Amino acid sequence: MGQKKSASSKSRDLEKLLARFRVTEGKRFHLNDIDPGDTAGVDKDFAKAAHASGIERLAGLQERLYAEDRQGVLVIFQAMDAAGKDGAIDYVFSGVNPLGFQVFSFKQPSSEELDHDFLWRTSRSLPERGRIGVFNRSYYEEVLIVRVHPEILAGQRIPGSVISKSIWEERLGDIAAFERYFSRQGFLILKFFLHVSRDEQKARFLSRLDEPEKNWKFALADVRERGHWDDYMKAYDEAIRATASEHAPWHVVPADHKWFTRYVVSETIIAALEGLKLAFPEPAIAPQQIATARKELAKS
Amino acid sequence: MGQKKSASSKSRDLEKLLARFRVTEGKRFHLNDIDPGDTAGVDKDFAKAAHASGIERLAGLQERLYAEDRQGVLVIFQAMDAAGKDGAIDYVFSGVNPLGFQVFSFKQPSSEELDHDFLWRTSRSLPERGRIGVFNRSYYEEVLIVRVHPEILAGQRIPGSVISKSIWEERLGDIAAFERYFSRQGFLILKFFLHVSRDEQKARFLSRLDEPEKNWKFALADVRERGHWDDYMKAYDEAIRATASEHAPWHVVPADHKWFTRYVVSETIIAALEGLKLAFPEPAIAPQQIATARKELAKS
Repeated sequence: MGQKKSASSKSRDLEKLLARFRVTEGKRFHLNDIDPGDTAGVDKDFAKAAHASGIERLAGLQERLYAEDRQGVLVIFQAMDAAGKDGAIDYVFSGVNPLGFQVFSFKQPSSEELDHDFLWRTSRSLPERGRIGVFNRSYYEEVLIVRVHPEILAGQRIPGSVISKSIWEERLGDIAAFERYFSRQGFLILKFFLHVSRDEQKARFLSRLDEPEKNWKFALADVRERGHWDDYMKAYDEAIRATASEHAPWHVVPADHKWFTRYVVSETIIAALEGLKLAFPEPAIAPQQIATARKELAKS
Repeated sequence: MGQKKSASSKSRDLEKLLARFRVTEGKRFHLNDIDPGDTAGVDKDFAKAAHASGIERLAGLQERLYAEDRQGVLVIFQAMDAAGKDGAIDYVFSGVNPLGFQVFSFKQPSSEELDHDFLWRTSRSLPERGRIGVFNRSYYEEVLIVRVHPEILAGQRIPGSVISKSIWEERLGDIAAFERYFSRQGFLILKFFLHVSRDEQKARFLSRLDEPEKNWKFALADVRERGHWDDYMKAYDEAIRATASEHAPWHVVPADHKWFTRYVVSETIIAALEGLKLAFPEPAIAPQQIATARKELAKS
């Protein structure tokens, strides 16, 4: 054993790092236990250097997923504003083939969407087999912003007779049931909560005001949401506790350091895809037929 | 009490008749207990005479549903071939306003549909608030024809790792969970199984061969499915047992007499809509403003 770590010891370290942020059982989970500033002893230069290889490994895995065309992947990103969702998606998926990849951003629902059940808009945007689909925000907004602002619920035109005292537990149960169903259909579900601190959010909002090319990202309404910070943390806590499972784990990733967030998100997705044991399908042509095919092609 | 029945006694009789075919608790249900030839002592001329008033009452209820724009209705029809689904849909809904009404017929899935989870194609076709949506066949096919013909499942490209021994129980559980969710969103769910006998189906197939203008309805494959009759009855039995509930009842309607089937389906839907207590919403204009509005309109 020299000073340099062996490859297998490195991979064990990485496994441990990812497991640290993975939640598969909600009962004992508390958001407070996760420090948004944590970098888990990872070296910043090392994390940044992993980017190029990460892009390459993810592209290779996606190619197999697409060729196999049986399993599919749904990646959900949830976070407070300025936690780095958009940047992380861009960073992690910049090398994937757009043929097998789609991002849907769910903002304020349209009036057509509000006319339907709340899962309608996300259900129709679910990925196909062989594809990776990313939800930038998702149906979880129905138990986050809608919970923090009950006036939104009132505007949803749901008949009063079905709004019960346990509406949030019911919605969380409905979401958990949907995710169980979707995983049984052969889809991998990965959920990320990028956990930024209130102070770091303030600093990022300030830089949006200070730097003219970032001004477009700033909205006064976002600042006002800071007044509901504790309510949001409570809603996230309960959502994660109610919907974390082996088949649809939450990954609660510290988000005060962008380089660290991106590193963990990237390696988590790669490790999960590696776990699918993807293989190129059996070719439709037998090896002994290849020579014949070459000859026919030459004559054609 | 004279010879003629009072209106309230008639309505109690009708309630009893509809309750006879309604299944809200599956445990004790057995398809064998329902006689496809049953007409429950209803007079044929009386049933036919109820058609005109039925169309009118349903149109009135639909108008309120549309104006209220909060609740919605999903009506599912399942049956063996030639049980009279298409005819019943035409008969019952011929007077409704097409603005607030849509029928989707789910046949063999397309390759785009097969690329998705099995609920995808029906989820995106769910009715909006204020509307009645009819599914002519539905996601139940996934636990009926797919169960009777496992080779269809093999063709669905679902990864083997998620196909367990309890796949049908899982699918039925997933369907029950979906229906619980959808009803919590303020949608009424009515499920009809039109229960035709094997002999009556044969007679109807023969008439499709005998009458040239019915020939187009005949397919040899339908005849071959008769060989799987008992398997289908078993699959229906288990589907109804697993998914009958107060919020998504099954109505198992004898279907050897078309006039009776149509009468029961029509009255069941009307009674369920009456149960929604639909009312026109409060007008956006206050009564005292109407005179002002008239004046402004005159000047404009």
